[in-house]
Amino acid sequence: MLYLIGLGLGDAKDITVKGLEVVRRCSRVYLEAYTSVLTVGKEALEEFYGRNLILADREEVEQKADHILKDADVSDVAFLVVGDPFGATTHSDLILRATKLGIPYHVIHNASIMSAVGCCGLQLYKFGETVSIVFWTDTWRPESFFDRVKKNRQNGMHTLCLLDIKVKEQSLENLINGSEGRGRKIYEPPRYMTVNQAAQQLLEVVQNQRARGEEPAVSEDTLCVGLARVGAEDQKVAAGTLQQMCSVDLGGPLHSLIITGGSLHPLETEMLSLFPVPERQSGSQSAERLCT
Amino acid sequence: MLYLIGLGLGDAKDITVKGLEVVRRCSRVYLEAYTSVLTVGKEALEEFYGRNLILADREEVEQKADHILKDADVSDVAFLVVGDPFGATTHSDLILRATKLGIPYHVIHNASIMSAVGCCGLQLYKFGETVSIVFWTDTWRPESFFDRVKKNRQNGMHTLCLLDIKVKEQSLENLINGSEGRGRKIYEPPRYMTVNQAAQQLLEVVQNQRARGEEPAVSEDTLCVGLARVGAEDQKVAAGTLQQMCSVDLGGPLHSLIITGGSLHPLETEMLSLFPVPERQSGSQSAERLCT
Repeated sequence: MLYLIGLGLGDAKDITVKGLEVVRRCSRVYLEAYTSVLTVGKEALEEFYGRNLILADREEVEQKADHILKDADVSDVAFLVVGDPFGATTHSDLILRATKLGIPYHVIHNASIMSAVGCCGLQLYKFGETVSIVFWTDTWRPESFFDRVKKNRQNGMHTLCLLDIKVKEQSLENLINGSEGRGRKIYEPPRYMTVNQAAQQLLEVVQNQRARGEEPAVSEDTLCVGLARVGAEDQKVAAGTLQQMCSVDLGGPLHSLIITGGSLHPLETEMLSLFPVPERQSGSQSAERLCT
Repeated sequence: MLYLIGLGLGDAKDITVKGLEVVRRCSRVYLEAYTSVLTVGKEALEEFYGRNLILADREEVEQKADHILKDADVSDVAFLVVGDPFGATTHSDLILRATKLGIPYHVIHNASIMSAVGCCGLQLYKFGETVSIVFWTDTWRPESFFDRVKKNRQNGMHTLCLLDIKVKEQSLENLINGSEGRGRKIYEPPRYMTVNQAAQQLLEVVQNQRARGEEPAVSEDTLCVGLARVGAEDQKVAAGTLQQMCSVDLGGPLHSLIITGGSLHPLETEMLSLFPVPERQSGSQSAERLCT
């Protein structure tokens, strides 16, 4: 049996009791380590689970899935995923491959950022399409996600923006020199997009659209919610303008950003008022005023 | 401290390790028992948690929240919610009330139907606004949710339909006779809407719209996904037409229904083909054909 087990969003103890029991009895346990992170590392998980974990990077999962599935028809193999196995990233590929090999699978769900963002008080049913914001480079600055934000706002819906993660990316130098063939890969240090970076990229899109004579769907004053380490003990949430999101300090990864969809339910407004941007970071407008 | 703890979607062991530790040390533990159910009852939870649970019905939570919050400023009180505390139902009211009383709160997230539906292979980021389908009566047959399905489909997005639950509803006889004042309440037996009932109501809306000369946003042939007991050991998923959803047998509660948003990603199509409507229930069209 192949078990896909969600680890939730915080630390080692956010696994479910059922998930932990399965982890402890599987013959091999893989940890998917490229689409999200917990607040603790592999060693802390290994200690709490009492098991060695095999790190599975993108290459392993996408190109060498047969390693993961080896003998899963006669023994139990666990594949651990931060959040839920069908949350922000789906692992359909692995399931389809297992099914083709005649290997049964079982999913043990857990909290996903896709639903846990509800903790800020915005109502989940009012979220439209989720977008991903990627790190821009000097030459690649995609703006297409902005159309989906626009459509959501036109329909009065909130937009959850998942922010880019770069883990185990080969360095440009490495790719140019083609050292891969010689078996020597050089990786960039991991990078996690902050709410500040996402907000700055968004405001650049706004400015580009204005320069082209278009009417942008958001502005500096659009009410947003920045979230960091949702589900962890030191979770941070701050509701304020997109401009404020450029400078609010939410600490370490992972960050997510919500662009609200216009008119709020009174309960949403009241909940957001629990999460003002700290005064010294808030600029001239208080979040409280914005939320009312 | 007030702890809001998600129980996940299956049985007693779907609580997180962290959640279980908190439950075991709290001075009082409430179980929210009117917006969802697990596949096991209160007694099974009590046995596994090793704690007595106090059932909190809608009246208790909405009108007598002060009972729940009593002494939570000096001791720990847990409020258990099937799924996630901010999933299909938010418990913002309770949090706002606690905050006003100066009681700190902490959320322990878990799987929610809002994200676990991803297990059928449809990609979560492509879901639009979530709708609720309520039991129609002879005199109250709301169709307004259908506009939101239409909007989602126009934007190419899937619609998750949460299906009605009637738990501890006062009987009509009881309400008419006004026996409440005499302290004697009669309750209807609990009712949970099935995928069959939801599909039949949807088709009735379709027929009503056609009779009015309108072009309905869905038809008998629209590809849907019926889900039952998501996250439980005996979970069932079936992908087929809306017409097929009228008769597919998915077993006991809870059920959910997804109306797909038109064109699917090839991975979505391939995943849905894992969940055909059983042959004897499928009528003339096979789900496989529909999914390709």
